[in-house]
Amino acid sequence: MDSHTEVYFEASVGGGIPIIQGLNEGLSANHVQSIFGIINGTANYILTKMGMGKSYVDALREAQAQGFAEADPSLDVNGGDTLNKLAILASLSFGERIFPDEIYQEGITEITAQDIRYAQEICDHEIKLLGIAKQRENNLIQVRVHPTLIPSQHLMAAIKGVFNGIYVIGDALGPAMFYGQGAGELPTASAVVSDIIYIARSIHLQVAGRLPSVYYRPKSGQRILQVEPISELDSQYYLRFTVKNEVGVIAKISNVLGEKNISIQSVIQKGQDQKEEVHLVIITYTAKEKNVVSALEIIDRMPIVTHSTLKIRMEKIDD
Amino acid sequence: MDSHTEVYFEASVGGGIPIIQGLNEGLSANHVQSIFGIINGTANYILTKMGMGKSYVDALREAQAQGFAEADPSLDVNGGDTLNKLAILASLSFGERIFPDEIYQEGITEITAQDIRYAQEICDHEIKLLGIAKQRENNLIQVRVHPTLIPSQHLMAAIKGVFNGIYVIGDALGPAMFYGQGAGELPTASAVVSDIIYIARSIHLQVAGRLPSVYYRPKSGQRILQVEPISELDSQYYLRFTVKNEVGVIAKISNVLGEKNISIQSVIQKGQDQKEEVHLVIITYTAKEKNVVSALEIIDRMPIVTHSTLKIRMEKIDD
Repeated sequence: MDSHTEVYFEASVGGGIPIIQGLNEGLSANHVQSIFGIINGTANYILTKMGMGKSYVDALREAQAQGFAEADPSLDVNGGDTLNKLAILASLSFGERIFPDEIYQEGITEITAQDIRYAQEICDHEIKLLGIAKQRENNLIQVRVHPTLIPSQHLMAAIKGVFNGIYVIGDALGPAMFYGQGAGELPTASAVVSDIIYIARSIHLQVAGRLPSVYYRPKSGQRILQVEPISELDSQYYLRFTVKNEVGVIAKISNVLGEKNISIQSVIQKGQDQKEEVHLVIITYTAKEKNVVSALEIIDRMPIVTHSTLKIRMEKIDD
Repeated sequence: MDSHTEVYFEASVGGGIPIIQGLNEGLSANHVQSIFGIINGTANYILTKMGMGKSYVDALREAQAQGFAEADPSLDVNGGDTLNKLAILASLSFGERIFPDEIYQEGITEITAQDIRYAQEICDHEIKLLGIAKQRENNLIQVRVHPTLIPSQHLMAAIKGVFNGIYVIGDALGPAMFYGQGAGELPTASAVVSDIIYIARSIHLQVAGRLPSVYYRPKSGQRILQVEPISELDSQYYLRFTVKNEVGVIAKISNVLGEKNISIQSVIQKGQDQKEEVHLVIITYTAKEKNVVSALEIIDRMPIVTHSTLKIRMEKIDD
């Protein structure tokens, strides 16, 4: 692209929230250390409604009836829309192009209203679909989209319904959050018109094409930042097993977790009143993703396990 | 000031939060309808600690020990610092200079830990020191600083400790919030350096002095916006009476309120175990400030009333 062409895209992430300019200019003195974004209002609306007891299907139908979700809501609920927006946020934050196909993606379609209630009851957490980008040591970065348990007391947990919030941690600024409506005619227009006013001010003085606020490192030759594979992630996990209502189930499952170096913080059995099968919810201490995956491969083949296990990563956000 | 001189002051409100640029540029397509700011971290820290049961004096002492409050914390706790910052926010938002001496000011020194607990118990509200600026009809504006009861479920209630938050409602954008650290060496540096980077980019292209992003209406001649006197405010009120532990007290007080056209939403008597005097907390429906003031003048002269009554305004924020 011609260096004298300026492209503005404030409405591309977070609707009317001035997050693009915030990252480009307001936080220009910072090295961004991490970003946590609730940047798909439809998914957040569905999770909020499920937190009030609605089923996934009913919550989705309601989102469509309200005009939030598209007739085909795939990109909203499978994390694809969040992923595309995270690619923009991560690129601006880290000063290097992060491409969508480098980002780990998981949606909310496996989450049930029960999981949201368990998370609240067992460890006072909420489930949010987050886009997460983190600087790690040795020029590694994490870029991932997945449902996430976050502490109910955290400000991000208070973002309800179709609202969006982008939580940024800068090395100088510390944590900051930008909050507002992520979609809708007028909020989007608010962002687009702010871009037009900005560029009109430049054109008025014939200074369009001024020094851009973001620099990417050279793309040719070697790239500096590398994406850490999701298998290397260290995280706490919420694991929801669906098992036969039999004695000894906890022992069998926890044996496998122990063999894979996964320590258990708490185990709760739910649905004892149901005769045939029960839920077993395990919160782990910090474990390696690949160990959790390989433990679940073993566990999910056990005859006592009646459905494949749901695993949700946990984030403290401010740690 | 020479029109070719640009002045940048991002650090003046909300420390590292890019709220000045947010109002000037991100929200430039909006008519700002109202602003609610938690913009003094020390006062918010004190109220947060009081919400955890600490006395005002202990909370203030702790804020000083932590280095948040000045040795003379007057401007933090009497609302003066919030007022000066609100003058900046209101001027940028409304496009007309709003001067500090036009702003109503009340601090947090009369609030007790008991009031915070009562507000939580009786109506699930938190007490925050807010700077409030609102556009009203007929070119009237409200600009006021005072402790305020806000619903505990509101995002602004989740702003704890020394953090700041500025909640802005724009006509296109709807509600938005900017959140972060309002003070401290590095957050402040983050804001100052972002200004320097911004101006350096302009100087690089020799375009410093470009069209400013904010216009004030002509100051000479007539002014367009007028400040509504606080006496004309319509608000719900939290009234905490300290009265003798006698039969008939509620009747005497509610009679006076009724005479002044003040409807009562709830009455709770607190501290019945204390022999001599009790607290009577009344939440009113929306009433006119001047009526409340004149009712309290009468009530506070009654022999049954042992201390002057505390009145705290309530805000729903999003209505």
